[in-house]
Amino acid sequence: MPTKSPQEIFGDRVRLLRSKAGLTQEALAAECELDRSYIGSVERGERNISLQNICRIAEAIGIEPKELFEGWTRHK
Amino acid sequence: MPTKSPQEIFGDRVRLLRSKAGLTQEALAAECELDRSYIGSVERGERNISLQNICRIAEAIGIEPKELFEGWTRHK
Repeated sequence: MPTKSPQEIFGDRVRLLRSKAGLTQEALAAECELDRSYIGSVERGERNISLQNICRIAEAIGIEPKELFEGWTRHK
Repeated sequence: MPTKSPQEIFGDRVRLLRSKAGLTQEALAAECELDRSYIGSVERGERNISLQNICRIAEAIGIEPKELFEGWTRHK
């Protein structure tokens, strides 16, 4: 199994927690005032997302920012 | 007490966990190959730091990225 990058691990967490919250990409994008295509690229691990957008996404999902980092394992 | 921004809360966590690890700003900067002045500005809450740099700093301190987000309270 190839090692995932931090961006891919983060994107997987966003997708999982967004789905658990019953939100579509469109609904999440509207809630945090970001583009749906941007949310899609974050979930695919294509974005080196900034702290502010991490916090906006967490708030829109209704979770703490730290939950987006849970279940990670150290790289190295 | 004025509400701190996500960048300031994050910066405080970096400073606290860096100090606990016994690292100076210089040592942390060298370990994660970032400028000392950049680390200083992150700790002062002046940077909208990216996911990749969040992970580099966590790894250099010897912690999981999520630890940099612990103890936050929701903003709103």
